[in-house]
Amino acid sequence: RAIKDMVIRGSGALGLAGAWGAYLASLHNDSLAAYQRDLAALKATRPTAINLAKTIDEITTSLDEGNFREQVEQRVVAIVRRQLDFELALGEAGAALVKDGDTIMTHCHSGALAGAGYGGRALSVIRRAREQGKNISVLVNETRPYLQGARITAWELKRLGIPFTLITDNMSGFCLARGMVDLVVVGSDRVARNGDLANKTGTYLHALAAHDNNVPFYTATASHTIDLQTLRGEDIPVEMRSGAEVLTLAGQPIAEPGTRALYPAFDITPHRLITGIITEKGVIYPPYEENLVALFGERN
Amino acid sequence: RAIKDMVIRGSGALGLAGAWGAYLASLHNDSLAAYQRDLAALKATRPTAINLAKTIDEITTSLDEGNFREQVEQRVVAIVRRQLDFELALGEAGAALVKDGDTIMTHCHSGALAGAGYGGRALSVIRRAREQGKNISVLVNETRPYLQGARITAWELKRLGIPFTLITDNMSGFCLARGMVDLVVVGSDRVARNGDLANKTGTYLHALAAHDNNVPFYTATASHTIDLQTLRGEDIPVEMRSGAEVLTLAGQPIAEPGTRALYPAFDITPHRLITGIITEKGVIYPPYEENLVALFGERN
Repeated sequence: RAIKDMVIRGSGALGLAGAWGAYLASLHNDSLAAYQRDLAALKATRPTAINLAKTIDEITTSLDEGNFREQVEQRVVAIVRRQLDFELALGEAGAALVKDGDTIMTHCHSGALAGAGYGGRALSVIRRAREQGKNISVLVNETRPYLQGARITAWELKRLGIPFTLITDNMSGFCLARGMVDLVVVGSDRVARNGDLANKTGTYLHALAAHDNNVPFYTATASHTIDLQTLRGEDIPVEMRSGAEVLTLAGQPIAEPGTRALYPAFDITPHRLITGIITEKGVIYPPYEENLVALFGERN
Repeated sequence: RAIKDMVIRGSGALGLAGAWGAYLASLHNDSLAAYQRDLAALKATRPTAINLAKTIDEITTSLDEGNFREQVEQRVVAIVRRQLDFELALGEAGAALVKDGDTIMTHCHSGALAGAGYGGRALSVIRRAREQGKNISVLVNETRPYLQGARITAWELKRLGIPFTLITDNMSGFCLARGMVDLVVVGSDRVARNGDLANKTGTYLHALAAHDNNVPFYTATASHTIDLQTLRGEDIPVEMRSGAEVLTLAGQPIAEPGTRALYPAFDITPHRLITGIITEKGVIYPPYEENLVALFGERN
């Protein structure tokens, strides 16, 4: 129900919720056939969530009738540990870019609640830098319309004890121009072969302003988000969501009834604005196509 | 009370409210001395509103005891007519830049409710283009934190019958990159000698994205907003307002108690991103310093 009603969102979190759901279901089923039926229902909760489907497939392939519950437990633990290892490796690679005293700008939410519990993507970098004893602070864009920055990133930073300041999305240009930001670190939903990336709407504007003020702009991402089959950013489909979310804020209407609104969920940041791509295998610099293919091969 | 409690905001609207207030006060005073005392109180409602003080001074200088009420009425009508003439001239100059079928992006509010009733600044251009029979539409940035776009610009456009679509401020980059905007027209709070301008926070980001996608970016402004004594944008002081406005939306809290927020009310758009400056005397193009001084002299 949590997956279906979108209480749990985001591809990483959906995969992990599926994994734990598969484990829970194994505790309540004595027969493998009944278990497989339950897992098919779990998989069908969000048919377009590819990460959920892949995770369920990984858990349910070739189970033995005799000891499927032990097999499931081992596989689920391995999946969660793999994600945690990924977050730690990503954080380690990115934290090397952060200096003592730095202020880091981030956009949207790319933290522990979207991962296995360490720091997700961008927040793994921030959390690791802090654990290394660096005295850092974070500038958080609120991220309209859904306010992931104000509601989730800020919540996580508070619990990590990392000082932060909230701004509205349209204030990033002022802050970057005034030298208030040392580096920008955001997540990404997909990275194309040439290094262009899709991320939460607004990312492109922050990247433009960072570039205009010589502030380094990084994305923290997973190697499986890098899609070598997609040549350029303009080939990445952008989800257009209902304009209704723009017309309300936390349930409160902000414009007159009948107002038309648009809601592109992502925008495309061209690779020429990106200083580096932080992955669990290290930081990749331009020329991106050459360096992405060298690191990951043609396997994607 | 409306001036003091900031029901009426913005320099143009404050001057006009002061003018109408001066007229109303003249109806209730039989002696010039009592009238002058009332006007001193009106002038003191917002001591930093230079336009209000200038307007009151213009109305109250050298009044005759015998017929001051007629003098006040004539002066107030002249002031309102001058502002209306300004808005019409500004609209006429700017509308020439708008083609049939264009979509115009605007930010914040720069319309009739901040002027004498025609269209203020940016909306004078839009309104005049529409009156010329051009089939236009407007893309309105909501303008966090105070939502002037969603609450005021959208309201005015609806009443003018001009079709519009609302977006959050962080969606402008996507819309500009996708060719959904033909030109950007915003107001401005001050223009420096070199053409740099200060306007509502977020303007700089929209200008960057317009420039990156070869979309013309104009400001509609009044010649008295052009300040030749201020050499560059970085010399314009930016008002830092209370972060509390960032932490709420229409009175609703959007982040946890104790969250720190920042609220720069304006940002600076460098002249290299500005295609032209629309004034009531025509459109000014680069090189700005040379052309501004040629048109306005050194009088500012």
